[in-house]
Amino acid sequence: MGVEFNKVAILGRHDDARVAEPMTAIAGHLTKRGVAVFASDENRLELGATHIAEQQFHDAVDLVIAVGGDGTMLYAAGVVAGSDVPLLGVNRGRLGFLADVTPDEMLTSLDHVLAGDYERDSRLLLDAEVRHADGSMTNGHALNDVVVLRRETGRMLDFETSIAGKYVNTHSGDGLVVATPTGSTAYALSCGGPIIEPRLNAVVIVPVCPHTLTDRPLVTQADRPIEVVLLERGDLKAEISVDGHSLGAFLPSDKLTIRAADSRITFIHPPGYDYFEILRTKLYWGLDSRNRGDRARKT
Amino acid sequence: MGVEFNKVAILGRHDDARVAEPMTAIAGHLTKRGVAVFASDENRLELGATHIAEQQFHDAVDLVIAVGGDGTMLYAAGVVAGSDVPLLGVNRGRLGFLADVTPDEMLTSLDHVLAGDYERDSRLLLDAEVRHADGSMTNGHALNDVVVLRRETGRMLDFETSIAGKYVNTHSGDGLVVATPTGSTAYALSCGGPIIEPRLNAVVIVPVCPHTLTDRPLVTQADRPIEVVLLERGDLKAEISVDGHSLGAFLPSDKLTIRAADSRITFIHPPGYDYFEILRTKLYWGLDSRNRGDRARKT
Amino acid sequence: MGVEFNKVAILGRHDDARVAEPMTAIAGHLTKRGVAVFASDENRLELGATHIAEQQFHDAVDLVIAVGGDGTMLYAAGVVAGSDVPLLGVNRGRLGFLADVTPDEMLTSLDHVLAGDYERDSRLLLDAEVRHADGSMTNGHALNDVVVLRRETGRMLDFETSIAGKYVNTHSGDGLVVATPTGSTAYALSCGGPIIEPRLNAVVIVPVCPHTLTDRPLVTQADRPIEVVLLERGDLKAEISVDGHSLGAFLPSDKLTIRAADSRITFIHPPGYDYFEILRTKLYWGLDSRNRGDRARKT
Amino acid sequence: MGVEFNKVAILGRHDDARVAEPMTAIAGHLTKRGVAVFASDENRLELGATHIAEQQFHDAVDLVIAVGGDGTMLYAAGVVAGSDVPLLGVNRGRLGFLADVTPDEMLTSLDHVLAGDYERDSRLLLDAEVRHADGSMTNGHALNDVVVLRRETGRMLDFETSIAGKYVNTHSGDGLVVATPTGSTAYALSCGGPIIEPRLNAVVIVPVCPHTLTDRPLVTQADRPIEVVLLERGDLKAEISVDGHSLGAFLPSDKLTIRAADSRITFIHPPGYDYFEILRTKLYWGLDSRNRGDRARKT
Repeated sequence: MGVEFNKVAILGRHDDARVAEPMTAIAGHLTKRGVAVFASDENRLELGATHIAEQQFHDAVDLVIAVGGDGTMLYAAGVVAGSDVPLLGVNRGRLGFLADVTPDEMLTSLDHVLAGDYERDSRLLLDAEVRHADGSMTNGHALNDVVVLRRETGRMLDFETSIAGKYVNTHSGDGLVVATPTGSTAYALSCGGPIIEPRLNAVVIVPVCPHTLTDRPLVTQADRPIEVVLLERGDLKAEISVDGHSLGAFLPSDKLTIRAADSRITFIHPPGYDYFEILRTKLYWGLDSRNRGDRARKT
Repeated sequence: MGVEFNKVAILGRHDDARVAEPMTAIAGHLTKRGVAVFASDENRLELGATHIAEQQFHDAVDLVIAVGGDGTMLYAAGVVAGSDVPLLGVNRGRLGFLADVTPDEMLTSLDHVLAGDYERDSRLLLDAEVRHADGSMTNGHALNDVVVLRRETGRMLDFETSIAGKYVNTHSGDGLVVATPTGSTAYALSCGGPIIEPRLNAVVIVPVCPHTLTDRPLVTQADRPIEVVLLERGDLKAEISVDGHSLGAFLPSDKLTIRAADSRITFIHPPGYDYFEILRTKLYWGLDSRNRGDRARKT
Repeated sequence: MGVEFNKVAILGRHDDARVAEPMTAIAGHLTKRGVAVFASDENRLELGATHIAEQQFHDAVDLVIAVGGDGTMLYAAGVVAGSDVPLLGVNRGRLGFLADVTPDEMLTSLDHVLAGDYERDSRLLLDAEVRHADGSMTNGHALNDVVVLRRETGRMLDFETSIAGKYVNTHSGDGLVVATPTGSTAYALSCGGPIIEPRLNAVVIVPVCPHTLTDRPLVTQADRPIEVVLLERGDLKAEISVDGHSLGAFLPSDKLTIRAADSRITFIHPPGYDYFEILRTKLYWGLDSRNRGDRARKT
Repeated sequence: MGVEFNKVAILGRHDDARVAEPMTAIAGHLTKRGVAVFASDENRLELGATHIAEQQFHDAVDLVIAVGGDGTMLYAAGVVAGSDVPLLGVNRGRLGFLADVTPDEMLTSLDHVLAGDYERDSRLLLDAEVRHADGSMTNGHALNDVVVLRRETGRMLDFETSIAGKYVNTHSGDGLVVATPTGSTAYALSCGGPIIEPRLNAVVIVPVCPHTLTDRPLVTQADRPIEVVLLERGDLKAEISVDGHSLGAFLPSDKLTIRAADSRITFIHPPGYDYFEILRTKLYWGLDSRNRGDRARKT
């Protein structure tokens, strides 16, 4: 009987030895198991893989294995966005939020996955669209977040948010983050946002250092577009970024619309995946370093 | 042609003049419009209403009008819990999060509602169940929140949370709040939780003054039970409350389970209801009192 | 008998009618009282004041009256920095944290002050010094805060802080604010810092959106220098600003040192000045809009 | 030549083996060095120490060594409060904020200290005084914090704060913490307060889960009394505690006054003491578990 995934692309930065090594091991292992291995050109020779461009992953493969860290997984999500091709993340070192397979266990994990013993984990992907004054548009996908930030110190941004055309608020501050559940443990968490379980079809709008102290994070269902416009205020400078990559300047005449992308991203987890365990590990929930009972007592 | 609601119960504390007066006006108006008016016994005479016990509201009426504040609405939610009877809230003074009709506009609003010109707004109701060591159970409903708090100063609580049997975390601190979207703007907000739009079928678990600083609010889908148990720790004392009412002491041998109630609560809003406007008003988002541009400049 | 202040400079943006009008009234009132009035050149004619450059205020006047908002007060603090000349702030509209005399009461207040009936309020001023790789230096004063912020979205800054040469921490995030008590109610408050009473000789170091959630605001005595250096990390871009004005780019080879300036800034308040009342007003402490007792009850 | 400290009391809970063992080792070491060793009665035999009551430590000894954790140090501070006798803390396990000598290094550290090679670290002690309606008074000392908390769930406390008789604010919420710099890293930190360096003569007033979101921590100089009174509100129940120990119920007719105690507490640290290093260790500032660059990238 055949394996679950027959055509697998491997993606990672092969000039990093901690990445190249597991990539090679995975490629060899897959080949031995009779799986066709693909890679975009730079990695081809090392892996004994067939070269295809990343844009062809959509049609040519039925699984992408990303080797690196969470940043690589974000990148890989961009590659498979719009297709049904799932992602499996191998971390080159520490456990990641997204790249949850460690090098130690990766070949065993792979065998489980090939045998059909895995979990699918569907994640919300956001589509950010900036409509400029001249009618032109800039687009981007975000698995983590869409961020609007001022680029100039000493100046607050003023911006308006609406949901499905309904005015929400006028904010003043450093900017705002619109994060998916996946991104809720990234930058949004540093800005005071909550953790959102990935299975919830929601986004959180987190104001960054808001002037108004009651301007708190708002969790909203992901089925309606969120619109953001800047208010004119001298020569302010703002920028939009998606998963950490700039979409360029954000001008008062622009309109940013953020909505759930048409398709979601699917992660493949080996058996035993436990979202809460990852939270506990990454947020040090297990550790307790401040003395718990700060209460005067003889012992 | 008939009106949308033919049998309406009015609920409120008639010994408060600011409540009794609108109650009387509403009862008179409804009677004039041919609507049968009901009230539980204490209010009967003043209103010219038929007396029925609150327990009969389920079967006897097709709308409950609560006059008072948000506390009255929480109380009324308990009365109609388990039925399909919707609630309409008239505030005796200031705009409430829940009681959103002001005395000024109430008769006009009522006419709109009777004419079928209204919005239904369905809200999550929680069911809290405490299973004691002896097998006995204590139950309660919460439209806002289920709260576990220590009753003794100088002592932290240690407790474990799970979702659908899956271990989430061991917390130390003052306690925790499990809030609905409705309750997210009440106590949970004071504890650092986010605002959650009512249409999202979610709850937020907010640790109260957690010892571990990374123990942050967690938003989770409302379709699975949340379990809380206390860890043994000397003679600690904790208490559970639902919408501010005590369910009694919470002991280390007890198990608290919080789940979505079988039925939801329906609010009836006159036309023009705007959740975000209520947020803006209640949280003073419009106001901007600290000087915005705290930047040295000649003007 | 003479008045307390005989030579008074007036400062404000006379092209704003809400500023020019009180400036003119104040100048007239002072002249009538026999006080010599000074202004920097642009305002001279309107006010019947003697023209002197702002740099001469140090030696020529014994009080500066700033008309505008808190921004004008920050600017005026820069003008008198290094001298003993005190400041009195007239707000063109709303009460400010710093400009606490309203146009309505300004002439009466002025009479009190001239009669010696006033309070001196001494405020910490910070001196920020950037030492560049080539040995050159950039300097600035801050009555509110010295802020280091990234200028590029999608990239965290990594920076190290020390106090008097003693290593404090390595931070990752958007940047940091070093605020005086005066600045503690400005940007630092939006970043999660505490309010610090002005009479405390302290500064607060507030990390901005820190990656590490336990990286909390640190209040430290103002008698030792705080040093900040950026860690090399690709082509990161950061900027330093003092009271909202850029000191230019902050490079990994630069060293930022923040220390208490040699002299403090003195505000003159008319009788009845109450710092806590200003806090209550500016932070809406009096108002209570969310319903206080979110507890289910019949009334 | 003699040693710096000739009469040393040892304090700790000798029924805990992890405490008794280092106590015995310390007592033996001191005796060998010719230092007179004292202990309160329960520990006498094991240690070969002279028995004196804890109340006599003030006059009889010139150093108290507390073995245990931070709770033991808080207890020991109560024992030496009002005297000049300094404290040295030996931790039975992990590094504490206050008990900063580990068992491994304790004998070496002791030799340093006896040789005069140590640092004195003076800490603010608070004096809490409750004046009851009948004129009676309750008192307590706090090295960490004075805490007012509600004892009943589902009810907010309303209370007023003043500083030196000057009204500060009316608060609603779970209560408030008045913390010393030492206590700023204990409960106050969990409530959102800042870290305050111990050398600053300041306290922080931290509202606990305040209803008003702008009711933020206030850092104030420790030279003036802070007064707290409860506002009448039905049958509310509140409690005051000092360093985790109850001072009893706090009633609306009571007045709580918190002021700097007449004397401070002195800690003795072996050479190399580094407050920031303790912060870094206890707050995990060194660790970085969430992936820092959550930015989409190939590696």
